[in-house]
Amino acid sequence: MPRASVLRMELCLELLEQLEADGSVYVTSRQIGEATGVSADKVRQDFFHLGSEGKPKVGYEVAQLAELIRSVLDLKTAKKTCLVGLGNLGRALTASNIWSRAGFELAAIFDTDPSLIGTTTAGIRVRNVTEIYGVVKAENIIAGVAAVPASAAQDTADLMVGAGIRAIWNFAPVKLHVPEDVVVESQSLAWGLITLSYEMKNNIKDQAPERAK
Amino acid sequence: MPRASVLRMELCLELLEQLEADGSVYVTSRQIGEATGVSADKVRQDFFHLGSEGKPKVGYEVAQLAELIRSVLDLKTAKKTCLVGLGNLGRALTASNIWSRAGFELAAIFDTDPSLIGTTTAGIRVRNVTEIYGVVKAENIIAGVAAVPASAAQDTADLMVGAGIRAIWNFAPVKLHVPEDVVVESQSLAWGLITLSYEMKNNIKDQAPERAK
Repeated sequence: MPRASVLRMELCLELLEQLEADGSVYVTSRQIGEATGVSADKVRQDFFHLGSEGKPKVGYEVAQLAELIRSVLDLKTAKKTCLVGLGNLGRALTASNIWSRAGFELAAIFDTDPSLIGTTTAGIRVRNVTEIYGVVKAENIIAGVAAVPASAAQDTADLMVGAGIRAIWNFAPVKLHVPEDVVVESQSLAWGLITLSYEMKNNIKDQAPERAK
Repeated sequence: MPRASVLRMELCLELLEQLEADGSVYVTSRQIGEATGVSADKVRQDFFHLGSEGKPKVGYEVAQLAELIRSVLDLKTAKKTCLVGLGNLGRALTASNIWSRAGFELAAIFDTDPSLIGTTTAGIRVRNVTEIYGVVKAENIIAGVAAVPASAAQDTADLMVGAGIRAIWNFAPVKLHVPEDVVVESQSLAWGLITLSYEMKNNIKDQAPERAK
């Protein structure tokens, strides 16, 4: 599935969870298409490939389709994760409630600042990044968040990979070099701002779930 | 342009800026398609609608296409912006270099915490949120970043709208209610994590600019 399709699945899941909260039972391919920016035909085609067909007139079952997407995106598999870099961004991520929805569990936090090491954040003791090898192995951690400055990003990735981590969520504006079998998802906050710029020019309302109502 | 197309434009611009940095002069629709997850035909169709055609064999001029996208997304229009909420996320955003690339200029910071008001962050004095009306008017601020907890998000949006702000970048997991002529871009960090989850399952490498090399 190309990146654009994954993004569509995420937009679709957001819509479905909104509909679930509102108590809706069915959703049409047209509603999904409006929320995700493609045609109803394309929506039907996407879900047909994933093994789901809507019922004529009424559409897809909201709960069932949400479960299908969670399964396709593997959101229900538990993934132990560590975070390196307890700066402002690291603290914001640590305090946020984004982890469990995607199956991630924040199990360890590392930093190099002696004044942070040994303190506790969100119930997790901050450790020296030199301990990463032992901790990742002992805790079966498979994913890592690099919330470090650009200058430290590649070193952090090397440490993570050396420790056995196989997936990195990278917040530094740096292209990380990792072995073939390690996945990197680079997060750019700039994207949201670019989208806002376009919306301001065109005065388009927030297109997330709202649009399909 | 639907949201999915805006996201494709952003991915494409990222590719083009990478190619510019590498000194490449041309890019093919196939390269762009690989980086953005659509067919080469769809790429040609998209840019044809925007008034740009590639040359047979060589493709599009990298610099020209990048300028076209910046113009379509309105990245070069200066947009004065304020931030409300100098918590961890607010600090991370304030310190980041994401603003100017999209034409935004952070011109004011507001908080309600008396211990923060009057201090200076990134060269900007933190003001009491009660001052937002006067400051937004005096500084011609048109956009606002809501980096506040969910419980304060709607009140913050109401304040912004009352002060004359016409675009809100919202980080709280809350659907904001704003007048028709105000745009809201809701940012969910969870999306990156969901994408990482899918990539881990399928062991797909980071698909940003790299893919097209």
